[in-house]
Formats: sequence, structure tokens, C-alpha cells
Amino acid sequence: MEEESQIIKGKYAADISSIKEAHDRIKSLILKTPVLSSASLDAMSGRQLHFKCENFQKGGASNAVFSLNDEEASKGVITHSSGNHAAALALAAKLRGIPAYIVIPKNAPTCKVENVKRYGGQVIWSEANMRSREEVANKVWQETGAIFIHPYNDGRILSGQGTISLEFLEQAPQIDTLVVPISGGGLISGVALAAKSINPAIRILAAEPKGADDAAQSKAAGRIITLPETNTIADGLRAFLGDFTWPVVRDLVEDIITVEDSEIIKAMKLCFEILKIVVEPSGAIGLAAVLSETFQKNPAWKDCKHIGIVVSGGNVDMAVLWDSLKK
Amino acid sequence: MEEESQIIKGKYAADISSIKEAHDRIKSLILKTPVLSSASLDAMSGRQLHFKCENFQKGGASNAVFSLNDEEASKGVITHSSGNHAAALALAAKLRGIPAYIVIPKNAPTCKVENVKRYGGQVIWSEANMRSREEVANKVWQETGAIFIHPYNDGRILSGQGTISLEFLEQAPQIDTLVVPISGGGLISGVALAAKSINPAIRILAAEPKGADDAAQSKAAGRIITLPETNTIADGLRAFLGDFTWPVVRDLVEDIITVEDSEIIKAMKLCFEILKIVVEPSGAIGLAAVLSETFQKNPAWKDCKHIGIVVSGGNVDMAVLWDSLKK
Repeated sequence: MEEESQIIKGKYAADISSIKEAHDRIKSLILKTPVLSSASLDAMSGRQLHFKCENFQKGGASNAVFSLNDEEASKGVITHSSGNHAAALALAAKLRGIPAYIVIPKNAPTCKVENVKRYGGQVIWSEANMRSREEVANKVWQETGAIFIHPYNDGRILSGQGTISLEFLEQAPQIDTLVVPISGGGLISGVALAAKSINPAIRILAAEPKGADDAAQSKAAGRIITLPETNTIADGLRAFLGDFTWPVVRDLVEDIITVEDSEIIKAMKLCFEILKIVVEPSGAIGLAAVLSETFQKNPAWKDCKHIGIVVSGGNVDMAVLWDSLKK
Repeated sequence: MEEESQIIKGKYAADISSIKEAHDRIKSLILKTPVLSSASLDAMSGRQLHFKCENFQKGGASNAVFSLNDEEASKGVITHSSGNHAAALALAAKLRGIPAYIVIPKNAPTCKVENVKRYGGQVIWSEANMRSREEVANKVWQETGAIFIHPYNDGRILSGQGTISLEFLEQAPQIDTLVVPISGGGLISGVALAAKSINPAIRILAAEPKGADDAAQSKAAGRIITLPETNTIADGLRAFLGDFTWPVVRDLVEDIITVEDSEIIKAMKLCFEILKIVVEPSGAIGLAAVLSETFQKNPAWKDCKHIGIVVSGGNVDMAVLWDSLKK
């Protein structure tokens, strides 16, 4: 065990030391989110499920912003994001008292754009494709000199996300398996690096929409695969792995469980009706994965008894939720 | 302070001793619900708000069921309720392995009836009025010999509800004011009895819909007032005070803040969008009260700095929520 921890140390864009440093830096800025459980959902899944409610978290980008020195921070921060990173960065910048320039593609959910504005972020629109996002962000960078903070392909982001595992495994130390949504891989990489250092025997499983299964394809191919297009209700899970996150996913994530949008919607409804929490499709995918046939029928996961599910974003347009739930 | 604690002891249907006994009895059966906060809601209210998420609680009737001796319990339990007490009693009875007979009025929300069935409660329908509810319950009692457990006018229920304060004031000891929904008065009586024993200086405020303001009228008249009819979206807050709850409300609740349904809906939306929790109208009324002009402009509440809000039920039909939120 010692050996594996040592291997992890220094090999990737974050490690247990950078994650513990991040935790010391941000613990007064973030919410220690609760862990919920439900006898009904345990019965449905045949396991004991522990839900880490990061959908309540608003301080998700605090480590990236607060690890800048004063000179770096003075000109502000930039990102391009359609999602929760955008709002989290705006909030962290507000707390630090610096500007946040947020490039948002035109197809972003309304509620996520509103959150950016609520936290005082300056919204700059781009087209919906990644090339336009990057071009616009680059232009803003040239004009402002602000520091670019990528939504996931950034060691500071990984370290911040890793703090979730520090809390989660303290709150529910019996966890033997973690199920985490995968998009660009920032969340699962941080979570995996910390969790594997604390308990090398823990299993890390990713949950991914079938309509954006680049991570599953990447694992199968042994290299980063990107897709010409994605098609899923989980707007937070459409990004592709980056060179900082791929090595962690390749080495530490045991499997990628892909699920249909219909399974995601069903899980979102269960979160709403049984756990009484508001989650977006991306946030509910971990539960969808655990309830899926793919997971339930795989003998490799038969002895996953205590499953920790990271519930990520809670930003869902009511109209979208309603349209999904009434189906 | 000592004196006031002594006065409380033994005077009402529950006291700090019975509440602590209840806590010892049920702590392994109930969820220690988290306390959430939000900088955005603090800014809106001009106070620091602490939300005790009892909308996540499913063990609300555990004390009543588990304080029965084996002989009493053997024939099961009965109640009449359109709301959360019905499901909570069914769940507690299931855990104890005894039958639960639940008389439900025809106008009860669908999701609440489904919860009773999910926990194995036997649903017996009555007309929507209190007289029919009582008649049907009485008939079931004659047939089964089960123990009747009133939704609120029962010392065991008050003691169980009081355990909320034990947790809440441990989780957020800086609280100087508690705002609690009022219906039949069971929740607020238990909460007030425990909180005043722990901190006699704490203020207890009730939140009540204008369309079912029997408690406000009772406080003004100095006696229990019942209403010929009620009209509010908050289906959980339509009951009237009972002889076990009225003395506590009379003596320990400083004021009743009444709010319009439109204010309740706005608060429910804020809980959903900002706190990311699912609450029913009755559960959101505490926030509605704190944001109301009635509260904000009353100089008596100017120095309420740390306000603890008890968020009660989370059982809302999606269709009802959507109809409210799209307005």
C-alpha cells in the first residue's frame, strides 16, 4: 500500500500532498457537504449507497483562484465553460476581490448563466463549439492579461476536487467503491488520486452518458479519443479528457459505466423524490450507473458493498426538469 | 435561567427530560439532518440563516412508535393524516414490525399517499373533513385494537420533534432565533420546549399561512381558535392547535408571522434554486417568513442575527411545484 501511494506521489498533475494543501487553503471557503443515504435506494440497488452532496457546493474553483499569488491574481481570471466551473470561478474571484471573465457558449443552460451573473462574473458569449470558446477566451486574455483557468485540465482544479475524497472517506470510511461522473476528467481524477492514496484498495468507477462516451472509448483504445459530436441531456458531461486527466483515468479508474439518457432521467427523479435534493442530469448519473444492468450484472462489482456516489451539480432549469420528469 | 428551565419541566406534554430520552431511543433510527446556509440568502435577508433540513427526515414518528411497550405495539398503530406524519408513522411501524393503519383524506397529495404505501402502511380513505377522518379512524380502532397516535396532540410526538433542537443547537450554537412552521403545533412545541431549556434567551417565532392563520388568531384571542375553512397551498399547515400544543405556543412562542401563498411559493423556488433542496410549501414557509416585510420591518426582530429555520417536509408533487414555479 505504501508503495502504491508513493507511485501516485508526483506522477500526475496532483497528489495527496497538493490535495491536502488545497484543503488547508480552501476549507473555510467551501461547504463541507453532507452525505445522505436512503433505505429505499439501498433496497433498489442491493448495496449501501452514500451520496456526497456536492450539488450543494458553490466553492468548487476556490483552490485554483486562491493558490494564485497577488500579482498573478491582480488582473483577474478567465475561463470558458458552459457549466458549473463558470459559476464557481466567478464566485471564487468575487471572494478574492478580482474580476472573472467567463466565456460561455450560446447553448448553455439559462440557470448556469444566471449563477455566473449572480456572482458578479462578466459574461462573454461564444459560439457553441470548442474552437469558438477557445478563440474568444484567447482574445479576452490578450485584452486583460487575466489568468486562464481551464475547467478541468489544470492541477489546481484537480487538487481542489480531490478534497472531496478527504471529506467523503472521513464521513463514510466504510466506502469500498466510488462512482464519479466523468466529463473532462477533472472531478474523477482529483477524487481518485486522493482516495487511492488514502485507501489503495478502493475501486474507482466512472459514470458516463452513452451519447458522450469518449472516456469509455479512450479507455478501450488506450489513448484519448474525442468525438465529432455529443448527444446527451447531461450538459455537464460533454467535454473530452485532457492530457492532465487522461493519465489518471487510464491508470486509476477501473471501469467506465455508460448509461442511457433515460436512465439518467430516472435517477434524477429518484434524487428529487426520495433524497429530496435538486440535481442536474450530470449530478444524477452516478446513481443511474449503480442502478444500471451493466453494473448490476457485472460479477466484478458483486462485492462492491458500500458505494460512495459523488453527486455533482445541482443546476437544472426547472423547465428541463419538468419536461424530463413528466415523461 | 435556571428558574425558567425548572418552570418548563413537567408543565407541558413534553420537557427536556422526555426529549433527551426520546433522542436516546431514536437516534439510531433517525437521520441527523444537515444544516445548510447560503451567502445569497443571507444577503437577501440581512441575517445569517441556518437551514435545518428536516425535509430529508423520514423517521419523524419513531419516538411515538418505539416508546410503546411490546403489548401496546402488538396490534399496530393508527393515525389520520394527509401528510408527512402518515408516512413517518408507516415507516416507524415497519421498522418495529407492526401494522400501521393510516386514514387519509381524499384530497391528500398523491406523493404523500405513495410514501405511506412505499413503507407498507395500510391506506384507509376518508372524506376530506376532520369529522370523517376521526370517524373512520375510530372504526379502524374498534376493529383492530391498534394504538392511536395523533399527528401532533401527543406528548410522544412533541418529545420526538424536540430532538430537532438538540441537534440544531449543537450544529449551530450561535443561533439566537428559531423560525418554525406552525400547523397543529407539534413541531414548534417540541422545538420550543427543547430550545428554551437549552437557551432560555432564544426567540421562537412561528410561520403560518395567512389562509390558515388559526394560530395567529389564537395567540391574539388568548384561546384556541379554529377556522370554518382554510385556504393555502401549504397542505401540511391546515391543522388547528390542540390542548397539548396550545399551552406551549401560548407561553413560549413570541410571535406568529403570517405570510401569503405567493411568498411561500417564492421561498420554495429559492430553496430549489439556491439551496438545491426539494421542499414542500409547508417546508419553505420559514424562509418566506424571514424574507417577509412583516418580519423585516418589525423593530422587535432587528437584533435577530443568527436565525435557525426548520425546513420541514420535502414531499411535493412535481406537477404542483412546476405549476407554482412557472408563475
